Amino acid sequence: MAKDNQFVEQIADIDADFPRWYTDVVIKTKLVDYGPVKGTMVIRPYGYAIWENIQKELDARFKATGHENAYFPLLIPMSFMTKEAEHVEGFAPEVAVVTHAGGEQLAEPLCIRPTSETIIGNMYSKWIQSYRDLPVKMNQWANVMRWEKTTRPFLRTSEFLWQEGHTVHATEEEAEEETQKMLAVYKEFAETCLAIPVITGKKTEKEKFAGAVATYGMEAMMHDGKSLQAGTSHYLGQNFSKAFDIQFLDKDGTHKYGYTTSWGVSTRLIGAVIMTHGDKRGLVLPPVVAPTQVVIVPIAAKKPGVVEACRALKEKLSLAGVRVLLDETDNSPGWKFNEWEMKGVPVRIELGPRDLEAGKFLAFRRDECTKEEMPIEGCVEAIKALLSNVQSNLLEKARERTNRRIVYANSVEELLDGVERQNFVKAGWCGCRACEDVIKERTAASARVYAEGETAEKCIVCGKDAKHVVIFARAY
Amino acid sequence: MAKDNQFVEQIADIDADFPRWYTDVVIKTKLVDYGPVKGTMVIRPYGYAIWENIQKELDARFKATGHENAYFPLLIPMSFMTKEAEHVEGFAPEVAVVTHAGGEQLAEPLCIRPTSETIIGNMYSKWIQSYRDLPVKMNQWANVMRWEKTTRPFLRTSEFLWQEGHTVHATEEEAEEETQKMLAVYKEFAETCLAIPVITGKKTEKEKFAGAVATYGMEAMMHDGKSLQAGTSHYLGQNFSKAFDIQFLDKDGTHKYGYTTSWGVSTRLIGAVIMTHGDKRGLVLPPVVAPTQVVIVPIAAKKPGVVEACRALKEKLSLAGVRVLLDETDNSPGWKFNEWEMKGVPVRIELGPRDLEAGKFLAFRRDECTKEEMPIEGCVEAIKALLSNVQSNLLEKARERTNRRIVYANSVEELLDGVERQNFVKAGWCGCRACEDVIKERTAASARVYAEGETAEKCIVCGKDAKHVVIFARAY
Repeated sequence: MAKDNQFVEQIADIDADFPRWYTDVVIKTKLVDYGPVKGTMVIRPYGYAIWENIQKELDARFKATGHENAYFPLLIPMSFMTKEAEHVEGFAPEVAVVTHAGGEQLAEPLCIRPTSETIIGNMYSKWIQSYRDLPVKMNQWANVMRWEKTTRPFLRTSEFLWQEGHTVHATEEEAEEETQKMLAVYKEFAETCLAIPVITGKKTEKEKFAGAVATYGMEAMMHDGKSLQAGTSHYLGQNFSKAFDIQFLDKDGTHKYGYTTSWGVSTRLIGAVIMTHGDKRGLVLPPVVAPTQVVIVPIAAKKPGVVEACRALKEKLSLAGVRVLLDETDNSPGWKFNEWEMKGVPVRIELGPRDLEAGKFLAFRRDECTKEEMPIEGCVEAIKALLSNVQSNLLEKARERTNRRIVYANSVEELLDGVERQNFVKAGWCGCRACEDVIKERTAASARVYAEGETAEKCIVCGKDAKHVVIFARAY
Repeated sequence: MAKDNQFVEQIADIDADFPRWYTDVVIKTKLVDYGPVKGTMVIRPYGYAIWENIQKELDARFKATGHENAYFPLLIPMSFMTKEAEHVEGFAPEVAVVTHAGGEQLAEPLCIRPTSETIIGNMYSKWIQSYRDLPVKMNQWANVMRWEKTTRPFLRTSEFLWQEGHTVHATEEEAEEETQKMLAVYKEFAETCLAIPVITGKKTEKEKFAGAVATYGMEAMMHDGKSLQAGTSHYLGQNFSKAFDIQFLDKDGTHKYGYTTSWGVSTRLIGAVIMTHGDKRGLVLPPVVAPTQVVIVPIAAKKPGVVEACRALKEKLSLAGVRVLLDETDNSPGWKFNEWEMKGVPVRIELGPRDLEAGKFLAFRRDECTKEEMPIEGCVEAIKALLSNVQSNLLEKARERTNRRIVYANSVEELLDGVERQNFVKAGWCGCRACEDVIKERTAASARVYAEGETAEKCIVCGKDAKHVVIFARAY
């Protein structure tokens, strides 16, 4: 284990061995650790603080769009899972099952929620009776469990934290609008707060959520050109309302089934942040979600006035709402630079006796690894502007990379070549599962989302008329 | 189920049938509902909003006292539970066990955390190596599971939400200080935010946490004179550090076991709020945690200017940080009064055409069920002062009741008489388990906490010298 006092260690080369770089970074920056049970993770304070910032931003957006938080039980009767045919097929192989409790065998086994459509559907059927009760728009912050064979911290673990929104509407149109609205909320959040440009669109039948009529995803390109599904929004039609009898008496005096949606993002987003912005020195965190936005490193801290000036600066920034940390440990400045760079703190302030005399300090920005002089006088606004600049620069850099790495393919060979060169690849597709499977087999790339509004002539596999242009990529 | 449009219904008489009153209130105000699995609850938006306010207040206090949030896995290997002898004895009968996952039987059964000392201890042993790593002070917001035979919403359910703090210190003194400090944080929070006066003190061996050296509890007197354990803080000594090998290299060059603490409060606090302040009309919520602090009810809403004035008022209060709701539904004012009184909203504003003309409105306070006129001009400060007054009045009323109902007993008969009359009863006790058991058997009262600083001559059971004065009560 990395210890505080042996913190600055080598991390693998980001371009030579990206998977190893990822593991090194998440462990050595103490974002996360492996739990005692295979496939589980412990989210350490530095990682959890990022999640708290993500929660705060998202929660405000959910509430602003009229959603309320609630909490539904962890354990779902097995019989619920089987009520929606596709749903059970998709999730049954991954569930963890409670068979004993309170010293006795249970009459019916319970599964730990892999997602909560079924148990929430069961409650909604009790609560909803009239059109006056609609829409119902709830969200839940919770832990879920999906037993996975291959796991990696944040990206795929047996247990993870997420939010799941579940809504019921009187009409198809309203439910579809909700599905699109929450997808748009996710996109705006990802770009504004995480500085991650995302591509949103509909998923293929093969890739959609088990039980959905349609799934819309947001995909983000990681450092290695692979795609990460960063969030999904599902239009569930009447599939779950029929399975769970969510009926309401409409204005016209007849009973109708509601139209439902669900949508979620998870601690996976932390993995997305790491793999979008990270560089050879380690993490690079966007200021909006960084636990520490500014770290102050005193230079020649024993010289008169230095520590006092640093403390005063910290106080000023803190009062202005900046998340600031003053590193007063015994480590050398160089050691501190390395440590906080590895931990991805967006801005570092270096302040020594000569700076103090000149009424200035050095501000280092982590995204570009450059330094500039700044007057101490009036620095609060300047630091805030710098943070805002770092935030938008990270988004622009990531956007530029994503745009640069989207290519077109006219054949499966070109598609393979494209993904081998770490690109997203757009290609025409006839819409049939067989061709989608061929592409997956031969290129290890999957259909991420439809490229909306784009058209192609032929399917690159069978040569028949293309129904869609699909963005293919290898994916996490 | 109570439906929105049939909301105002009869609730049981609070003094004639308190348990039934409780159930009626929690269900009809939509705080909670029963989940599909026996013993589980669904926390509905109105209940969850109270929990969010509790979380916000507590979380700020934990951070201000130097604690960081983290998240540890839900599933704990069975073998961990057995490492601390008392701990397994206390919790094993209540655990829910996962035996299958991912379609296979697990090599080792996993239990759903009833509390996390064991799995956190396991991680701390990896993370802590030197005195420089101490203290470690973490908190976790999480769901836990204890399979209980008799359950009631918020008070005792198989799954509940809570926070659990877990700390490690280099010395006994420091760990004991932490235990006391967090108990004090809980007490201040309960009194300031929930308006619940609490009695804190050490628990007897019989009542302490399984695995603790000492447990300190905070007890609150409910409407019916029964006690509710509202929070606990445990000094764990080296019990868990020895079981999980949490060792550190001290300054003197020797390896030592750390001293640990843990402390927690749960969604049970919502039950405490309901049973402390509720009255015959339903809930009475303290403003600090009330989801809605002020509800505005327009009178003769169709008369010109009324709705506009109500909206302007709502806007003003909302901008000033008051959680305010304007009830624009078609229901009659009388219906609305009943509904919001049952839901416990601290302050109601009634504004009609005549009020508008006079530049005034009526402000109804839920704690005293009285009304006063208030000028619209400058009302923000007046409403804030009223909310603050409601908050402190609720605490004073509850404190007065608690103080009035603490009596002394010199015999088991007197103790029985005292608890039958819905009192807390102080009595001398020799300190032996047998006498404690006799009291429990004959009075159905248990030892809540030691009355600190008080002395008595004789044990009321055996007549031997009293070691402690204990507060006995029937308890939830």
